[in-house]
Amino acid sequence: MANVLTVSLDAMGGDGGPDMVIAGVEEALLRHPEVRFLLYGDQARMAPALDRHPRVRQASQVRHCEVSVGMDDKPSQALRRGRRVSSMWRAIEAVRDGEAAAVVSAGNTGALMAMSKFVLDTIPGISRPAIAAIWPTLRSESIVLDVGATIGADAEQLIDYAIMGEAMARCLFGIERPTVGLLNIGVEEVKGLEQIKEAGRLLRASSLPIEYYGFVEGNDIGNGSVDVVVTEGFNGNIALKTAEGTARQIATYLRQAMERSLITRIGFFLAQSAFRVLKEKMDPRARNGGLFLGLNGIVVKSHGGTDALGFASAVDLAIEMAVSGLIDKIGADLAAKRRLQEIESAADAASAIHD
Amino acid sequence: MANVLTVSLDAMGGDGGPDMVIAGVEEALLRHPEVRFLLYGDQARMAPALDRHPRVRQASQVRHCEVSVGMDDKPSQALRRGRRVSSMWRAIEAVRDGEAAAVVSAGNTGALMAMSKFVLDTIPGISRPAIAAIWPTLRSESIVLDVGATIGADAEQLIDYAIMGEAMARCLFGIERPTVGLLNIGVEEVKGLEQIKEAGRLLRASSLPIEYYGFVEGNDIGNGSVDVVVTEGFNGNIALKTAEGTARQIATYLRQAMERSLITRIGFFLAQSAFRVLKEKMDPRARNGGLFLGLNGIVVKSHGGTDALGFASAVDLAIEMAVSGLIDKIGADLAAKRRLQEIESAADAASAIHD
Repeated sequence: MANVLTVSLDAMGGDGGPDMVIAGVEEALLRHPEVRFLLYGDQARMAPALDRHPRVRQASQVRHCEVSVGMDDKPSQALRRGRRVSSMWRAIEAVRDGEAAAVVSAGNTGALMAMSKFVLDTIPGISRPAIAAIWPTLRSESIVLDVGATIGADAEQLIDYAIMGEAMARCLFGIERPTVGLLNIGVEEVKGLEQIKEAGRLLRASSLPIEYYGFVEGNDIGNGSVDVVVTEGFNGNIALKTAEGTARQIATYLRQAMERSLITRIGFFLAQSAFRVLKEKMDPRARNGGLFLGLNGIVVKSHGGTDALGFASAVDLAIEMAVSGLIDKIGADLAAKRRLQEIESAADAASAIHD
Repeated sequence: MANVLTVSLDAMGGDGGPDMVIAGVEEALLRHPEVRFLLYGDQARMAPALDRHPRVRQASQVRHCEVSVGMDDKPSQALRRGRRVSSMWRAIEAVRDGEAAAVVSAGNTGALMAMSKFVLDTIPGISRPAIAAIWPTLRSESIVLDVGATIGADAEQLIDYAIMGEAMARCLFGIERPTVGLLNIGVEEVKGLEQIKEAGRLLRASSLPIEYYGFVEGNDIGNGSVDVVVTEGFNGNIALKTAEGTARQIATYLRQAMERSLITRIGFFLAQSAFRVLKEKMDPRARNGGLFLGLNGIVVKSHGGTDALGFASAVDLAIEMAVSGLIDKIGADLAAKRRLQEIESAADAASAIHD
């Protein structure tokens, strides 16, 4: 498979299992007919779906695994049972061994993160990877990280999130200088948590090539005030799920309101093309996939409850990130940050001598 | 004004100033013709609005204040300039002195909290007050606290928030056993921040008369999974503003989608009664007002950018809480908690002696 972009897939992850994954690959092949796939999972369970999707069979290599990680397994349990043998583990290994440029799984998030750290290791200088989500906004889309890989982050880690998110924004949106904001509870410099204020001061003072915007608040995410919103994982997860809940709530209100009378139902019928547009904008399947950032390889977590369309967009994301060389960009940026810190501390030391 | 419920108002707070406040009182009088008002502010600036609203003039006493707190003043600045003399300070004093049963201000949140703590003091056992918001849900409404009074909360403070929020839910919703949940990033007992897990263990083990539901996630707020959602202020503020941003985002999408074509516009016209229902459900003015909990008195913060209708619902909230005896209920619950803790620690000591 030399010179051909290959994506490895944990075919057993997600509520829909191999049927959903393989139907998703069929979708992804429509947009990326040149890409090849490694399908890790139970051969017997994959066979019927592969019979229904001969194009997928042709574009894929099946690699049989006896073990698969359960959706409710604890990460420690998954590591004990699934190490070296599970479909998830082996799909990640394909990235480490250079057989695949990225891996996608709709399986258990905690297990996927634990195994990814184990197999791929973190990029030098990164202690804790983050999960980045793509958030639809009034302007277009933004990246929000961390949405739940880790609880808590100090100033240094927030800056690493900023660097990684900024690199991802360049790859994903094709813009040269994405803007970066720190999520806080007020836009004034004096407000908020100490580590966020510290990260803000460092980003403002630093010579890093980052377009630092300042603090943003919860409502700025949906507004699209910045391209990259940086936050610690607990908060990021609460924000993401609160937004999902609010969107579902309004959709339900709208549905109920439209069923009130014959006239509103006729109105709804006439306006259905508008509702279709709205539905597409809000469709969580259009941008399904959290990207794990900070690892020596591209790992995309698809939503566990998604369908073939949703899984295909997770595969799209994996392909886009691989093609645009995300990992190299992040590596270069983090190396530049370290050099800058060395130069700055050397300058400080020199000025201390001369003082 | 004996035996008459009186509400004191900071007439200078909010972007709309005295005109908005006085028009709001007119609205509130429609629903509560028996209530009387103390209007604190600049007499000359209030006069034109009072001329336009003779019913408000009749139901109110005007108390002239030279100083008003600016919307952007820092709390420390507001205290220095506004202590004893500002409309905000004196409106709060009316509650302390028993002249008013509650105070409402659309002014600067930080200044209102600082002055309220200074003038009214906190209820014994409460170190830090919270701000409670009323959140529309798919089921009806829920209370979320703290939405930004304080950053950070330990397990003991989270339990105090639970007690105060539960008392508010009984007053506001008229239910006997409101359910209480702790906002977390997973519903499993093992997940999340240590202080939240600790609060969960304590609430589950305690004999406090609280219907503790367990952990809830961001999407559970809009679902209405529980009547009271307890969280630390930083997170609560991010969640609240993220939900506001998402609601505004979807409303904008919807408007844009409806303007796509003549047919969708006709559909929109026919379905407008449905949109009106939706708009009412999502109208932030319908439940405008954060309630400060943990003080020896009822303080309602109206949104600064609100109009007369919104200010009137903040006044409604103040009246409802005063009529239902919120402060006494909270005081009794906190005293019960202290007694329970004493009994439990005495029992522990006794069993330690006998072991």
